[in-house]
Amino acid sequence: MKTATFYHAGCPVCLSAEQELLNLVDSSKVNVEVVHLGEQPKWIPKAEKAGVKSVPALVLDNGSVLHINHGASMSEVKG
Amino acid sequence: MKTATFYHAGCPVCLSAEQELLNLVDSSKVNVEVVHLGEQPKWIPKAEKAGVKSVPALVLDNGSVLHINHGASMSEVKG
Repeated sequence: MKTATFYHAGCPVCLSAEQELLNLVDSSKVNVEVVHLGEQPKWIPKAEKAGVKSVPALVLDNGSVLHINHGASMSEVKG
Repeated sequence: MKTATFYHAGCPVCLSAEQELLNLVDSSKVNVEVVHLGEQPKWIPKAEKAGVKSVPALVLDNGSVLHINHGASMSEVKG
């Protein structure tokens, strides 16, 4: 089973992208963990280290980062 | 069966995103058509009408557009 982490910050763009993406993903192949960085700010350093520049973003277990549309930059998430 | 159209322009960001995305998608639920706008420029107006601002982008059959990372703007694709 592959894993992926969907980082978001609760913004409308984030929630819309989350819905669309989770509807597309093959849940028998990929387990997607959803992390709300506004509610769980301790994850921000981990997200940044993974290469997340803005949210919403999906980080795959092979290291790839897919930035999906643009809800907020990481500096806005931290602010 | 839902359908989606993945628009790209052959750029490295596009090809990488295509690979990652098609690996995630549940092909039993969603049929993804891949359109290379560099090779098929007649699709550019359709993509723009769907709301594609940059490639790679995935247009869903409910009208949502997911812009994934940033390979090229549509003006660059046309240029």
